[in-house]
Amino acid sequence: MSTLVTFDPTPFFSKQQPAETKPFMMQQTMIRVKDPEASLKFYTEILGFKLLMHRDFPQWGFSVYFVAHGVDVVPEDHDERWKLCMTTPGCVELTWNHGSEGTEGNMYNTGNADATGTSNGEKVKGGFGHLGITVPDVYEACDRFHKMGVPFSKSPNGGGMKGLAFIKDPDGYLIEILPQGRMITKPIDCLDTPLEGGAGYKDNSK
Amino acid sequence: MSTLVTFDPTPFFSKQQPAETKPFMMQQTMIRVKDPEASLKFYTEILGFKLLMHRDFPQWGFSVYFVAHGVDVVPEDHDERWKLCMTTPGCVELTWNHGSEGTEGNMYNTGNADATGTSNGEKVKGGFGHLGITVPDVYEACDRFHKMGVPFSKSPNGGGMKGLAFIKDPDGYLIEILPQGRMITKPIDCLDTPLEGGAGYKDNSK
Repeated sequence: MSTLVTFDPTPFFSKQQPAETKPFMMQQTMIRVKDPEASLKFYTEILGFKLLMHRDFPQWGFSVYFVAHGVDVVPEDHDERWKLCMTTPGCVELTWNHGSEGTEGNMYNTGNADATGTSNGEKVKGGFGHLGITVPDVYEACDRFHKMGVPFSKSPNGGGMKGLAFIKDPDGYLIEILPQGRMITKPIDCLDTPLEGGAGYKDNSK
Repeated sequence: MSTLVTFDPTPFFSKQQPAETKPFMMQQTMIRVKDPEASLKFYTEILGFKLLMHRDFPQWGFSVYFVAHGVDVVPEDHDERWKLCMTTPGCVELTWNHGSEGTEGNMYNTGNADATGTSNGEKVKGGFGHLGITVPDVYEACDRFHKMGVPFSKSPNGGGMKGLAFIKDPDGYLIEILPQGRMITKPIDCLDTPLEGGAGYKDNSK
């Protein structure tokens, strides 16, 4: 398939940021998780996030856990901890609805054309695609993920885009693994897929 | 409703980050958008993001646009621009599937118990909740959003949690507006809702 690209975003590159928005910060992405312990293990042990903040809302039946990269020391003081969390870009807010941890299988639709969370078993055209983590070496990071038993939906040499990967978190959300500079490829990846291998483009855009 | 919180995350606060993950960075959240021009206007003009990077994939029928806070100057050089993008935390990757801009109404399920994107019109238990932007003054930011015609799903004094708000982007995704320090409240918000007002807790956890 080849389509005509009808939109030219060039003018947006030179747009001035409105003065009132200068201190605005993209601080969080919220996703619902079935089992907070499984998710915190994954996000801290596998992906290297730090737990920055947690709050329980027993009156409303849920708890939230903010995890972030780039933080070495979490302050003891509650207000300081909250402030640090609210001024750290790119936190992930893991939301646990109490009681969900007991259910079988995945319970939340991931956004990526799966049928989880529907009443008729039909796939949904979802909007959320993935979270993306950049790393110094995609192949080395994926070797480590593979040794730790992390499932892949695309290894670095799989599919049509070479040098990036998609792994799955405990709820099935896709996590893209990308380089911090140019796209670099290696002859063999963690799943022993050669660079010339991969079964066509596995597209996460749809 | 009041539930028992059965999980104590305390041990996770003192967990050491695995050495291999030290340079990992939560760089992106990907969401699909119907109309890239409408979305870029919203994310740059209303929320103050900067367009950092864009790539067209006509062979696969989609384009992506990375927007970020905290960047003043976007380099001219393509490689430098890409590198800056991949090392900027908290980017949003807006993904446009070519041709979607012509459809009526919302086309992607937002994750928040809506029926968009289903084949039977039933709501979906979605996993993605929202993006969250922190700002110096939630009430002032919301006054500005309101004047710019942005729809609210919760104004700062609406619902049960006072001092934070949820607005909607052009595809209906929720954007939470939060303070960069302590939660502060004011007697009246942009929708003229008094602090004692609001019709119970409008919960985005479910």
